[in-house]
Amino acid sequence: MSKHNFDDQAIKRHLELKGKIEVSLKAEVVTEADLSIYYTPGVGAVSRELAKNPKRASELTIKSDMVAVISDGSAVLGLGNVGPEAAMPVMEGKAMLIKKFAGVNAFPICLGTQDSDEIVMTIKNIAPGFAGINLEDIAAPKCFEIEKRLHQELDIPVIHDDQHATAICVLAGLINALKVVGKNKADCRVVIIGSGAAGNGTAKLLHKWGIGDITMVDSKGIVSSLRTGLDVHKQALLKITNKLGLSGDLQNAIKGSDIVLGLSRANLLSTDDIKTMNKDAVVFAMANPTPEITPSEAIAGGAKVVATGRSDYPNQINNVLVFPGMFKGAIETSTNFVSDEIKLRAAKSLAAVVEAPTQDYIIPTVFNKAVVDAIAAAFKA
Amino acid sequence: MSKHNFDDQAIKRHLELKGKIEVSLKAEVVTEADLSIYYTPGVGAVSRELAKNPKRASELTIKSDMVAVISDGSAVLGLGNVGPEAAMPVMEGKAMLIKKFAGVNAFPICLGTQDSDEIVMTIKNIAPGFAGINLEDIAAPKCFEIEKRLHQELDIPVIHDDQHATAICVLAGLINALKVVGKNKADCRVVIIGSGAAGNGTAKLLHKWGIGDITMVDSKGIVSSLRTGLDVHKQALLKITNKLGLSGDLQNAIKGSDIVLGLSRANLLSTDDIKTMNKDAVVFAMANPTPEITPSEAIAGGAKVVATGRSDYPNQINNVLVFPGMFKGAIETSTNFVSDEIKLRAAKSLAAVVEAPTQDYIIPTVFNKAVVDAIAAAFKA
Repeated sequence: MSKHNFDDQAIKRHLELKGKIEVSLKAEVVTEADLSIYYTPGVGAVSRELAKNPKRASELTIKSDMVAVISDGSAVLGLGNVGPEAAMPVMEGKAMLIKKFAGVNAFPICLGTQDSDEIVMTIKNIAPGFAGINLEDIAAPKCFEIEKRLHQELDIPVIHDDQHATAICVLAGLINALKVVGKNKADCRVVIIGSGAAGNGTAKLLHKWGIGDITMVDSKGIVSSLRTGLDVHKQALLKITNKLGLSGDLQNAIKGSDIVLGLSRANLLSTDDIKTMNKDAVVFAMANPTPEITPSEAIAGGAKVVATGRSDYPNQINNVLVFPGMFKGAIETSTNFVSDEIKLRAAKSLAAVVEAPTQDYIIPTVFNKAVVDAIAAAFKA
Repeated sequence: MSKHNFDDQAIKRHLELKGKIEVSLKAEVVTEADLSIYYTPGVGAVSRELAKNPKRASELTIKSDMVAVISDGSAVLGLGNVGPEAAMPVMEGKAMLIKKFAGVNAFPICLGTQDSDEIVMTIKNIAPGFAGINLEDIAAPKCFEIEKRLHQELDIPVIHDDQHATAICVLAGLINALKVVGKNKADCRVVIIGSGAAGNGTAKLLHKWGIGDITMVDSKGIVSSLRTGLDVHKQALLKITNKLGLSGDLQNAIKGSDIVLGLSRANLLSTDDIKTMNKDAVVFAMANPTPEITPSEAIAGGAKVVATGRSDYPNQINNVLVFPGMFKGAIETSTNFVSDEIKLRAAKSLAAVVEAPTQDYIIPTVFNKAVVDAIAAAFKA
């Protein structure tokens, strides 16, 4: 169903590389004197200094900029709970892209536990050597509690990028998509499919930005006050969503909406679904690796602007646009928590990288050198 | 007291580098196709394969050869319990040297806990992404329990190199030192100062090798059956040491001995102490960064062969000679536990790298390319 099938190439290259990142030395070790400076006895002076002033680890060690990319494998891509080994190539990829695009070092850690208490304890215990923690692909709702507890326990940036980075790049794309279709944010009704980490973070940011209304849809249908058994996070979402009091299934939600944001799983939408949306519909089908609907199917249904999370279609709304610059900005400014104000600034400056948005160009590619700085600068204002 | 003072240079270089290692990409990411292969959507195929066959992580991810160098900062160098931040430059140095000398990737993790249960849980939880665990600078006796429990829990090599690597390089040096002084192992009495991880591991290996007798000395004097309050590890050592039933202080132990092995802390020995040893004494003063006695003081006391742990004196008996090759060998052969047989083979082949031992050349330098293979080969026999 995709334009290209990268599966075979990906397996082949991963087998050849046996890991996409490696550890390299920043300094040559070729003489006895080098050993004496970087190892014993010289390293003893550095250790003694750090025993007196542990905070100087940020000046004297890899704690200066090393991000831990941490997952428990419970919500990997759109694949679900696949475990820590299956999460590794994704986390390696994240580490690779943080280094490539932001020049910030990052290292993947995949956890052999899915227990919240153990996850918090483990991350807290390995934190002394890291400058920041990138929580990644951890299932909702435990991801919210884990992030909150780590903010309380640690004095370094802890960012669940599925919530925050995704929200920023979705909003950036939406700012430009609305320019293309000529609609005002206050007049638009948005449907968000998926109320996990990404859907939750996106709903909160779009509300803050001032979108007209938001309808959340999860695997049981529209998140409405008529439903029983909603967890506290979904109950909280009700306060900022579903002004119209809609209930029922995905199709009920989509009918008459202006914007559909898929943050869920493969093949949930059909061309016929898109036909029920308002004129000049905007469809972001961002499930990875397989989107909720292909761009050609969405366009056949009347969508005017279509985006996916993939790099082989136009308009890639992928948090790779955000997380490298987000960690660069957070570490450089010692910002431990990404506030709504930072997120709004980041989304606006990311959108502004595209000077003249068109149907097929609402978001810059990650290869655009202005992207990282646009995000990182949002932490400095 | 050293020939050179590397302290200022070490601090200066560590400040300049802000970490001695970095994360590098094994592949270029310059096109959309690269992103599609290394990240989404292609990475999804690799994740799906690993969800089915987690063991293939060793073929498809950095788990192929990534060693975690883990310390809780409780027994760093000869400095003692200095905490995780102060341990970082040492663990970075270890990671640097494993990569440099064995071509094996390694990454430092310093723990914000010194509780055995939490250490075991944390290491177990981060293990899915690693090919091996190098336990490092963890205080005795908890290091013994932690290593034992991790052997039971994990199916990758777990090696406390302070015990095993140190024992191997000490024995290698001793094999050649005895050739220089012309004594037989069975006739020699050895004093080991320090009964922590390194002293313990060394005593066991020298006993296995067949040394005449061993006297262990800790901070309370000779480890003897007359003492009360000995922990189980020291009680176990009594079964293989102190045939003569000695008791009392360090000086009592040294008098009439042939070999003194310092695995303790700075400046414990004097020239006068060495004068009480037998003729053609062997003194390995291996505390880092400052040895138990300087080579010139030991020679003034009549020592014929003197070694330290430092790279700025002749005869550096430092476990850097062993741990890179040890992890190379263990990973290549999937050896999770370093047996006595492996250790004896490794010590003998390391000693054999020196064809004609002399007073100032009983051990090769780590820059000798034969060293890593000598150690790694011991895992294959």
